[in-house]
Order: sequence, then C-alpha cells, then structure tokens
Amino acid sequence: MYKIFVVIFFSISTLFAQNAKNSEPSADEKMFAKIYQGALENGQCYENLRFLCKNIGPRLSGSMQAEKAVVWAKEVLEKLGMQVTLQEVMVPHWERGEKETAYIVEQGKIKNQPLRICALGGSIATGKDGIQAEVIEVHQFEDLAKLGKDKITGKIVFFNRPMKATNINAFLSYSQAVGQRTRGAVEAAKYGAVGVLVRSMNLRLDDYPHTGTMRYQDGITKIPSAAISTNDAETISKLLKQHESVVVNYAMHCKTFPDAKSYNVIGEIKGSEFPNEIIAVGGHLDSWDMAEGAHDDGAGCVQAIEVMHIFNVLKIKPKRTLRVVMFMNEENGLRGATEYAKVAKEKKELHVAAVESDSGGFTPRGFSIDTSWPRMEKMLQWQPLFAKYNVYAFFPGRSAADVGVLKDGRATLVGFKPDSQRYFDYHHAETDVFEAVNKRELELGSATITSLIYLFDKYGME
Amino acid sequence: MYKIFVVIFFSISTLFAQNAKNSEPSADEKMFAKIYQGALENGQCYENLRFLCKNIGPRLSGSMQAEKAVVWAKEVLEKLGMQVTLQEVMVPHWERGEKETAYIVEQGKIKNQPLRICALGGSIATGKDGIQAEVIEVHQFEDLAKLGKDKITGKIVFFNRPMKATNINAFLSYSQAVGQRTRGAVEAAKYGAVGVLVRSMNLRLDDYPHTGTMRYQDGITKIPSAAISTNDAETISKLLKQHESVVVNYAMHCKTFPDAKSYNVIGEIKGSEFPNEIIAVGGHLDSWDMAEGAHDDGAGCVQAIEVMHIFNVLKIKPKRTLRVVMFMNEENGLRGATEYAKVAKEKKELHVAAVESDSGGFTPRGFSIDTSWPRMEKMLQWQPLFAKYNVYAFFPGRSAADVGVLKDGRATLVGFKPDSQRYFDYHHAETDVFEAVNKRELELGSATITSLIYLFDKYGME
Repeated sequence: MYKIFVVIFFSISTLFAQNAKNSEPSADEKMFAKIYQGALENGQCYENLRFLCKNIGPRLSGSMQAEKAVVWAKEVLEKLGMQVTLQEVMVPHWERGEKETAYIVEQGKIKNQPLRICALGGSIATGKDGIQAEVIEVHQFEDLAKLGKDKITGKIVFFNRPMKATNINAFLSYSQAVGQRTRGAVEAAKYGAVGVLVRSMNLRLDDYPHTGTMRYQDGITKIPSAAISTNDAETISKLLKQHESVVVNYAMHCKTFPDAKSYNVIGEIKGSEFPNEIIAVGGHLDSWDMAEGAHDDGAGCVQAIEVMHIFNVLKIKPKRTLRVVMFMNEENGLRGATEYAKVAKEKKELHVAAVESDSGGFTPRGFSIDTSWPRMEKMLQWQPLFAKYNVYAFFPGRSAADVGVLKDGRATLVGFKPDSQRYFDYHHAETDVFEAVNKRELELGSATITSLIYLFDKYGME
Repeated sequence: MYKIFVVIFFSISTLFAQNAKNSEPSADEKMFAKIYQGALENGQCYENLRFLCKNIGPRLSGSMQAEKAVVWAKEVLEKLGMQVTLQEVMVPHWERGEKETAYIVEQGKIKNQPLRICALGGSIATGKDGIQAEVIEVHQFEDLAKLGKDKITGKIVFFNRPMKATNINAFLSYSQAVGQRTRGAVEAAKYGAVGVLVRSMNLRLDDYPHTGTMRYQDGITKIPSAAISTNDAETISKLLKQHESVVVNYAMHCKTFPDAKSYNVIGEIKGSEFPNEIIAVGGHLDSWDMAEGAHDDGAGCVQAIEVMHIFNVLKIKPKRTLRVVMFMNEENGLRGATEYAKVAKEKKELHVAAVESDSGGFTPRGFSIDTSWPRMEKMLQWQPLFAKYNVYAFFPGRSAADVGVLKDGRATLVGFKPDSQRYFDYHHAETDVFEAVNKRELELGSATITSLIYLFDKYGME
C-alpha cells in the first residue's frame, strides 16, 4: 500500500512538472494568475486592516468601537458596489473596566511581586480589594477530584497545563488545552475554589496574558476567572515546588451589562445566472478588547472584503449570488452567526458554499473542508491549481466557528487555513496589532480565498 | 493531460488519507515523529541563536565578532561530541566606519531632508564632505545607454527598480532585482556617474536601508555605492517627477583593509558503516554588519548544529560520515565555501549529499534540489513522509550558495526552503535580529532538515 502510494505520488510530481513546462495554461490557471496579481499589486486589504486596527481598534461586542466597525464595514462594502443589509442581533455586553492587578503576596524573599493577568471574558469581578488566597496547581479536571473538596475549598485553582508543543497544527494544541479556560471556573467552583487562574493559551513563554471566553453554569457558584502570562505561570509553578504555600492576591473590575443591539453586516451581489445559489465568504467583525484584533479577526474581515474588490478589479460578474458577511460576536456568544443561520433557514436560502477566514493573516497553507465526499472529490480536482501558489493542504475537517453554524448537509463549509505557528503569539493578547501582520502574507491569503470563491462561482457545488 | 494529472492527484490524496488512517506507521514515519518531537520539546537551536545574536552579534568577515563566532561554533560542536577542524581561509575585510549621512540638499520646500542610506559592502568611501550631485533615476541598465554619457556624467545614478511583488517566491524577485546592487556602480561609472544609490532589496515600504555585496571591475572608475530605504526611494522618485533637478549629498566612511585570516568550522562524526561517504549540513557563520544576522544566517547555523543535537538525543549513530559545516564569508566573497570545496577535491572526498539552510528561520515549505534525475526520483519517494509536517515542495533547482560550490555531478545538493514572504523584511538590514525569529518556525526547520539528513544517512545516495 505504502509503495503504491509512493509511486503514484512520485508520478504526479513528475506529471506536474511536465504539465507546468509544456502546456498552455488553462483558463483557470490564467485566472488564478490574475487573481494573485490583483491581490499583490492592487490589493486594498492591508490598508483596510490598517484602518480597522488603528482608527477603530479593539471592538468587543457591545462596545462603541464594535458599532463603529459596523458602520465602517457597511461603507466599505457599499463602495464596492454591494447591496448592504444590517442584520440586527442582540449581543452580550461585558466590560473589563479598570486594569486588573495581581501579585504574589509573600513567599521567601518575594514580597508583593506583580503578576500579569487579565480577566477572562464573561468573568465576574473580585470586589475592590481583590481575592487573596493560597494557590493550588492542577493540570487536568481529574486532578480536582483527586485533591477533593478539603484541599481545594477556599483556594485559588491554578490551571497550568501548557499547550502541547509537538502538534504541528497549533490549533489542535489550543483545542486540547482551552477547556481549562472555558470550563475551569465551573469545575473548580464545584470543589469550593474561590477563584481561578488559567495559564494563557500561548505556545511561547512571554509576559502577555491572553483573554478569551469563559462560561458559568446555573447552580454553580460564580468565581472570578483570570488568565496569567506563561512566564508568570512558570514562576508560580516553581514556587509551589519550593514552598508549602503560595498566596496570591488579584483584583478585577469587570462587569456584565444588559445585552446590546448590534449587527451582522451583509454585502450582497446577485448572481447573473443562479441568483438563488448563495456563496458566502466572511470573517468576524468583533474582537477581544486587549488589542486591535489584527489577526483575530481583522485579517479575516479584510480578506473577505477583498474577494469583492478583486472581482471588481478583474471585472468578474458572479454567476451565483455572492455574499460578504461580517459576523458579529464570534468571540463570546456566536450570536451573529446563529442569527444569520436562523434567518437563512427561515427564508429557505440555499447556501452552496460558505468560507471563513478566522485563523490569522499568515501565509496560506490550505483549507479545512466540511462537506460530502462527492463534493470533496470535486474540490480535490482543484488542488493542483493552488499548488503553484504553495497552497497544498485540502483536508476534511471542521470549517470555522461562524460558517460552521450553517451546516445543513447541503452547504460546503470551508475554513481558510494559513500557517498556524505564530497565531498563538497574538491570539486574544495585547500583541495582536496591525504591525504583527505581514502585508504579503495577508494578500496571499486574500488571493487564495478569492481563487476558491471564483471556482465555487464558476463550477457550482450542487 | 491535465485531466489525467487531476485524477492522479486526487487519487493520491485519497490514498494518503486512507494510508494515514488504516495502517501502522512505518519505521521512517516513527522516526520522523521522534525527530520533530525532539526539535519541538528538547531543541537547543533557539537558545543557540539567542547566544549567537545577543552575545556575539553582527559578524562580518574579518571582524572580531566573526572570530568570536568561530570560537563559539567550535565549542558548541565539540560539546555535541564532534571532532572539530578549523579550516583556515583568507577573507575580505571591509568596515563601514562611522555611520553614513545623506540628505536632499534643497528642492522646493525641502531643505536638508535626511535620507536613510547605508554603504553597500565593498564600496569605497566618499571623502569626509560627501558627494553632492544631481540624481538621475534609472530602472534598467539599458536606461543608462539610452540616457548616454552626456546626461549621466557628474551625476548620482539612482537605481530604483522595485522587487516584483507578484512572484510567489520572493527569492525570484530578489534575483531579478539584485543586479542593480551588485553591478550598479560599474555600469553607472562607465557613463561617468560619480556615485550610485540603489533602492533597497526589500518588498515592503519602510525606513530601513539594506546592505549587501557590490563589486568593482578593473579598469572602471570606482564610485561610492549605497542602498537607500524603499520609502526614501519613493520620495526621491516623486520629487524627480515634480522638479527638473534633485540634488543629494551623501557621505560614507567605509574602508577596505587587507584580507584577514579566518576559518570554516567543520564538525565531523565518522560513519559507522560507510565512513568515506560524507553528508554535509551547514549554514554560514558570517553575517552583514547592520544587525545580528538572525535570519541570515544565524538560523541556518543553529539548524545545522541542531541536526547533531537531535541525533544525540535520539541516539542515532550515523552510518555515513556526518559533517556540520559553518562556512565563513558567504556574504562578500564565498571564500570559505571555495576553500572547503577545494580541499574536498584535493583529498578526493566523496560528498554524497550537502544541505544548506540560508533562506531564513521561517516555517518550512520544502527543498530546492540540485541532483541527477534518478536521485531526484529517489528523493521524491520521501515526499509523503514530509507532507504530514506541511512540507510539500520538492523541486529541482539551485541549492544554496555555499554547498553549491561542491557541485561535481555526484553530490546531491539541497537548499532548505522555508516560507519566503517575510525574508526581505529583514535581509541585510538592522531589522534582522533575534526577536524576528519565531521559535517554533525555527525548530520546525531544524526538524525538517534533520529528517532529510536522517534519510540520506539511512538510504545513501549512490
């Protein structure tokens, strides 16, 4: 089996090389070249991202900036000639308030040593003077059961399982570790903990706490929940090995307000031949409040918008209805995506494909595709077109959070997958700024997404 | 043809997916997993790079730091259990001297507006007061002939052809544009120019001048040659469109000294079965003087060293003789590589393979391979092993500068190819510092190179 595979793989490489050299480029190959050229020479996505990051900035659901982002997106899509709808949706409204403080109270030579923490999104506050308690370290939820209520009651539970370094796909490491962040407070509270500190979802050691959503559960005491930088997590862990007890104090001033009115921004251009077949491409307009949301998900938004821009530059008139969707509230509720899917279902809309870019503005590697096997076969035939642009990976898997809600057995759902190695250096931390995005990498992503949308539009997916 | 190709491509994808799911991993697959794990969990390359960048720093051939780097490399390789030889070689010794100054003398509202330039490596100085002359812009050498001596004599020739944005491989854009830098002074002097300013080899617009080597030619007047930042190149070009003449003054204080004694550092471990078959892996120890030489080529050095480290961690005893070679003077002379190849020839050494990493410490994409077709076929059979690690590109092409000199029809020469999009943000500029390298990307490169060396060692290339 392995040998057969090897021989075939080798054969295709040879054929590929010969094909590239000897024959006239196909119409699709020519169009791909134009699309990549358009993105790299006449692209607007980088300047759009600059505006979104620098002139609007952090745009957590329910914030003033989120609303500014809605107005901005509407204007940009209208300028591109799209019919724009603002789709109303009620979103959570949580605010961090005054900056958090935290310190190790006293341990050996240490006295009031500051720690870098941030409240997790949705957490309650601590009260003005903070929480002060002994810290107890765990790596798995099972550790809580082993320790038991006696040892945990009255303490701060410190979840310190690192993201696994050896997964090649950094998102896999994230999915394996993020439960500590989302469910840590609930699980620790069951054993009487008074607070939770979670090691930041970050593959490197640095000083930045990474926020992200966390949830409470009815009937379980709500306790304040914070992320701590990986360097500080290492410090506390070392101290706990040296001393019988480590006492930490942390204060957070966050608050949940009543749900706020917001919007998905939907740009549409009717298909010339098959107006009832919808192809959607999107990103999410909201971001966390710690930075500019450049990679998460400013990049995805401007790449989705860029599809329409490149179509305009190349005078491509879509045969199917093209929608550019700026989803609201992916980060802490998915309310925008849920509303979009609900309305689509009510209206009996047929989404043939939906593509989302929500993995950062890095160099493109491929697509994660959620579809039927016959449709996957169709897409695999397009793979060689992308290989020329160093985009090789077409793999079956989950698509992306917002478009994932559209799953109905008909729509082909696609997550655009750029290289994942640097993503968690920035994700939900104050490092996620415009300067962290490389112009060419962002533009190549735009071209890769546009090329796929072009094929969806040209060949359909029914 | 295209259809056949598509079907086969699709088939292999399917087979690949099935192969991955159903069968027990092969011995090679298991070893790859260990190698990648070793690099990501027990790697030393990132800390080695930190030392080379922060404790040694810029290390232009002939400098004190280059000699420190030699001592450091010898120690590191000896600690890894290698027999280390210092191979003497005479190298150029050029120094930048006091920082360059440059300004637009006067034009409309502008008066003494500073420009960011740096001397190109090997250039003569200007004299203390600098050169002051009108600037004339060209894009191609042919433009010089069109303008003629009358228009060029007494002027500063400004080579302003940008690197082409639309090549997916940034190194292709470099090779298309770099002639302006290496040969600009000679070509301009033929027409009576008094100096040369060259647009920096940089794909983005920013404020950093990028140095690099330039050459003079016997019988042609030597004129001072500098790189100018891409932003300043744009500024001058705009002014030239608005005004009849633009006068620039620039002063450089560089100097060429007599050749200095230096060394290639060669670590060796004898093969247990085929000691006469040599597999070499290397990078170049010298760097330009503008920054820390982190991507160029600190990354390549520490990745080559890491091969031996990972072999030690996994207790792999090479069957063939493994050499880790730190070449001296790749940047402005290639003297180290030339000496290494000369000695190898004299001693009738058989290099079966030589791999160099000199394209930055970015996420790995593949290899550029210079070999015979039967040997290429053999290597293509290894491709699926790498695909699991997102390394797909095996293409015939030039290898890398230092190992390229070994070309003798027997040795398989390989250039490791990481993603190229960000490389020219840093190349030969003050931005090429340790912080510009991502730990995981560097480590994945180490693992990718080590895996290839492992296969060369296991299967041979004769």
